[in-house]
Amino acid sequence: MPFVDVIARKRDGQELSRDEIERFVVGATDGTVPDYQTSALLMAVVLRGMTDQETTWLTDARVRSGSRVDLSDLPGVKVGKHSTGGVGDKVSIALAPLAAACGVLVPKMSGRGLGHTGGTLDKLESIPGFRVGLEIPEFKAVLREVGTCIIGQTTALAPADRKLYALRDVTATVESVPLIAASIMSKKLAEGSSALVLDVKCGRGAFMKDAAGARALASTMVAIGNRAGIATEAVITRMDSPLGAAVGNSVEIAECLRVLKGDGPSDLTALVMTLAARMVVLAGEPQEARAAVAVRRALESGAGLETLRRMIERQGGDARVVDDSSRLPAARHRTSVCAERGGWLGTLDATLVGRAAAALGAGRERVDDAVDHGAGILVRARPGEQVRQGDEVLDLLYNDERRLERARTLARRSVQIVEEEPAVAPLVLESIR
Amino acid sequence: MPFVDVIARKRDGQELSRDEIERFVVGATDGTVPDYQTSALLMAVVLRGMTDQETTWLTDARVRSGSRVDLSDLPGVKVGKHSTGGVGDKVSIALAPLAAACGVLVPKMSGRGLGHTGGTLDKLESIPGFRVGLEIPEFKAVLREVGTCIIGQTTALAPADRKLYALRDVTATVESVPLIAASIMSKKLAEGSSALVLDVKCGRGAFMKDAAGARALASTMVAIGNRAGIATEAVITRMDSPLGAAVGNSVEIAECLRVLKGDGPSDLTALVMTLAARMVVLAGEPQEARAAVAVRRALESGAGLETLRRMIERQGGDARVVDDSSRLPAARHRTSVCAERGGWLGTLDATLVGRAAAALGAGRERVDDAVDHGAGILVRARPGEQVRQGDEVLDLLYNDERRLERARTLARRSVQIVEEEPAVAPLVLESIR
Repeated sequence: MPFVDVIARKRDGQELSRDEIERFVVGATDGTVPDYQTSALLMAVVLRGMTDQETTWLTDARVRSGSRVDLSDLPGVKVGKHSTGGVGDKVSIALAPLAAACGVLVPKMSGRGLGHTGGTLDKLESIPGFRVGLEIPEFKAVLREVGTCIIGQTTALAPADRKLYALRDVTATVESVPLIAASIMSKKLAEGSSALVLDVKCGRGAFMKDAAGARALASTMVAIGNRAGIATEAVITRMDSPLGAAVGNSVEIAECLRVLKGDGPSDLTALVMTLAARMVVLAGEPQEARAAVAVRRALESGAGLETLRRMIERQGGDARVVDDSSRLPAARHRTSVCAERGGWLGTLDATLVGRAAAALGAGRERVDDAVDHGAGILVRARPGEQVRQGDEVLDLLYNDERRLERARTLARRSVQIVEEEPAVAPLVLESIR
Repeated sequence: MPFVDVIARKRDGQELSRDEIERFVVGATDGTVPDYQTSALLMAVVLRGMTDQETTWLTDARVRSGSRVDLSDLPGVKVGKHSTGGVGDKVSIALAPLAAACGVLVPKMSGRGLGHTGGTLDKLESIPGFRVGLEIPEFKAVLREVGTCIIGQTTALAPADRKLYALRDVTATVESVPLIAASIMSKKLAEGSSALVLDVKCGRGAFMKDAAGARALASTMVAIGNRAGIATEAVITRMDSPLGAAVGNSVEIAECLRVLKGDGPSDLTALVMTLAARMVVLAGEPQEARAAVAVRRALESGAGLETLRRMIERQGGDARVVDDSSRLPAARHRTSVCAERGGWLGTLDATLVGRAAAALGAGRERVDDAVDHGAGILVRARPGEQVRQGDEVLDLLYNDERRLERARTLARRSVQIVEEEPAVAPLVLESIR
């Protein structure tokens, strides 16, 4: 069958076969299907959708387009974690050591920041000396010794994904639940975990703006994972305002350290503990209550903090930052955005805060931009709090004065003061298993 | 705005602006919009549609992508005609001279056959010496002297259309009412007519299989024409069985001559007269009844036939074929497909008859195939007629014996014998003005 007929079948809303999806992924990657056919099919998928079966085949074909990390010689259940990305989302950096301290093996491959969202790798690299570019044997050695290791994804994993994503980015075919789900899951499945926890962000600072979209994405990813034999769970969490009280790189590392010292912001701490407990359950603890207790003990005993310290050491970082955050890079200048009138703080628009932090230098507008590890934003008043006129709401931390003006404008726009005490929705909206 | 945002707007079902559509057409033609973006937008148009306003802008941008024939120095209303294509559709070859004999100026640019449908140019070229490649000045000279002239479309008209069509063909984005309508109308508007009659075919041998699709296409084209200031009418006509009794090239020329001699098949003759009357009305005759009378007189007086004779002469053809059809190329061999049992002839599947004629050599499977002008099929029993077992239904005319087997199989499959006298639907289903 000519490939144009495959496109026509999807255009007409039919379910593609495993072979047809395989041809699509292989052809798009090796160029035997030209980009103009790939993009037409992608648009048909965006507008016609895919069944869970098709999406699972699509994921599988993308996994098989590259190599797969083999962790089978490491004993026990390897539990991966992925977040769809938000502002102030430093969860992995506290979560991975905390779950590891409970006996879970947590292999983690992360990405860099782009646009209004930061990246775990950039945050970790704010720790002097920290190396994210470990080869797989060293990755496995750290995992074995420490229980967790966080590195950058190698280009050998799911190369079809990179090719397809580049094309989707310029053809308005990013916004599709099956395409997003297959993209995320192909990378996660290639990482070799045997179970997976997904944090699907939902809200104005997230890719998915509403609960229905987040639920669809979460359900599809859970279906793909489970069909692929990887026990997969998702939590849907709010991302309207930034998570925690720090947005940037070194400031987020410092906040993770506070979480593991029992002194972190309540929203972030609660989410880290919730996800860690799910990972303990996925690793084999049948009783949820016991999993929660194990996580609390690992936090209170400092075992999570010690695991992070060992991970930093083993990955070449200056572990003295664990006890002394002032060793992290800091910005030279600080200025505040204050409440322009009294009232309650409604939401702090996460996208605007994220863009403001990026404008200060903490993030990237293009993939090859450099990152200023010290720049960032501290949230001084949390959504739902009462504020008086002139109260500091955000602190902007920066090195480059030329960057301040645009950042301040964005930061000011992020602050919403309301007349009445707002209802604060729970952070975890839903669990999907 | 980056072009990806234009694609996103159409993906989300929004109406594009005139500027956005202009960027699309210009960019797709000159390559500043890459093919992968063009095809993604085309697929979004297929699945999201376009308003009449957008389709009119799309048509206009395609017209302006090339040159436009200037017929303004010819006096009177120039009435063009277009058919969406069918099997045995030789209407233009009888219609253009007949309408011209009534005083209408009929400039006509036609195409070649491909797949199961024949092409007016191939049919005319079965007349020895006939030239379809006239330059515009000669085209206008013949128009002025004879009242009509039929040539091939020059590549200077609507070049964007050729580029877009080639891409649509390989990206499953042909099947779209706005894209088809804009493609047809951009070529027709570039031809310089001041009014236009459209014959939109509907049925198993047509591009549009059902009345709803044909009506949508007809309405869209009429809207585009009228918005562009070209008085435009459409008739929707049945294309389930072949039109007339001849399918091929020289056999269709011979049939046109019979029509203009008052001796043609009733369905074809009626359609030619109906369309000619509409063209007379569009050229300025306010009374429909008088238009019909004028057409009948032009037929009965032989004025239409004489106009065709002069057109053939002026375009270099051997005009002796008008009085002696045996001067047209004829096939050396003939064999019949007979009724396998008694009953009534239901439909003669037009697509299968067309494919059988092409298999005999009368048509093309690829654009660069040669055409055998003598090959073709004669319909001996018409749909709705009673037949006995063994009655001849189709005569297959051919030169190359190796082509017979496949053609005979297709021809046999086209014949449907039914137990009861079938209802025969009218040929003209609807008029849209």
